[in-house]
Amino acid sequence: MIEGHIYKSFDKELKELKEKLLYEGSLVERAIRDAIKALLERDSSLAEKVISDDDVVNAKEVEIDEFCLKLLALRQPAARDLRFITTAIKINYDLERIGDMAVNVCERVLELNQEPQLKPYIDLPKMAETVQLMVKESLDAFVKEDVELAWKVTRDDEIVDHLHDQIFRELLTYMMQDFKAVSRATRLLFISKYLERIADHAVNIAELVIFMVEGKIVRHLKTPEENK
Amino acid sequence: MIEGHIYKSFDKELKELKEKLLYEGSLVERAIRDAIKALLERDSSLAEKVISDDDVVNAKEVEIDEFCLKLLALRQPAARDLRFITTAIKINYDLERIGDMAVNVCERVLELNQEPQLKPYIDLPKMAETVQLMVKESLDAFVKEDVELAWKVTRDDEIVDHLHDQIFRELLTYMMQDFKAVSRATRLLFISKYLERIADHAVNIAELVIFMVEGKIVRHLKTPEENK
Repeated sequence: MIEGHIYKSFDKELKELKEKLLYEGSLVERAIRDAIKALLERDSSLAEKVISDDDVVNAKEVEIDEFCLKLLALRQPAARDLRFITTAIKINYDLERIGDMAVNVCERVLELNQEPQLKPYIDLPKMAETVQLMVKESLDAFVKEDVELAWKVTRDDEIVDHLHDQIFRELLTYMMQDFKAVSRATRLLFISKYLERIADHAVNIAELVIFMVEGKIVRHLKTPEENK
Repeated sequence: MIEGHIYKSFDKELKELKEKLLYEGSLVERAIRDAIKALLERDSSLAEKVISDDDVVNAKEVEIDEFCLKLLALRQPAARDLRFITTAIKINYDLERIGDMAVNVCERVLELNQEPQLKPYIDLPKMAETVQLMVKESLDAFVKEDVELAWKVTRDDEIVDHLHDQIFRELLTYMMQDFKAVSRATRLLFISKYLERIADHAVNIAELVIFMVEGKIVRHLKTPEENK
């Protein structure tokens, strides 16, 4: 009975771990959304809020790391649970980096808000929406151990790559036409790059999920076309 | 005396962990070097070798993860050592991703080798050399807990970003001048992107080292200019 009791409590702790990661995920999703809102509405105080709120994400990362280590030390879990916890440590790392990227976006927004807007933004919000969904779905895939959804996330990365290249080309045209556009175009380019990296982190998470569930190394299964 | 014995042996295990990570690091450094060599010398069999050798890196990653978990479960280490081991798990993750990027470079090399060379390569080998050094130095910084060296790695990322942008612009010119250049230019662009991502991983490692040693969150200390 005591053994049964321990297992039940461990399950509860694993559930708690999932919830903690989901909560961290919701924080970084909001950070992405607010960062783009700050860009579109030229809202510097919102940008500053995202920057200062990143402390919460960072504290969460440390808390989750410690929680994982506690589980490992006290529970000495078996193979499958071990893999789950290592995956959680890595996902935690990716999420914290996503938070950093949202902060980076906001720093560029604060700079951009010192000058008039260069152009209407069309592709950047589209890109932000896609990466936000990728982050959300990669975490859903983790929690539900849903491999199909994880594969979808890896495929969506192509949309983001494509938008990034399109944005790069367009901004380059602005830069070539008008020297005064260079600093603003460069900052927008950085924002596009940060979003692209968020997508990379979502893909990392998705690949971790596939590896965790199927025990396979993902990139060896991809077609060359997907494997970019 | 028994306690003393345990501590001594734990130190030995931490040393072993460092050595394992350094070894994994040397594998991915060689993968980067060989990937670029395969590009420059149009050596498809070398590219294929890098792709198949990635299995060794992947196996190493699993081995190191398991080693870390064993240390955590059996030793129940104190705060400082705990932080060292979590850092090791994250560095291990970054290194494995670097290996993937080298594989991606080689896949593009195999495609490029089916057509004549588009242009002489000047910036790409420069970029590869820089990212290889960044990987090496980030691991040295980890092993020696050398914060100064870790900061250097974060600064070197600017060189890589600059080279990537330069390569992008140049390849775009090729694409605009000649439709037949598009597929080759796109592949070269991907290679540049993979190298840039390797640099990002080296920066991740460097930031983990700074955090581990100083217990500070790095990006909050950076100047906005550095924080790109």
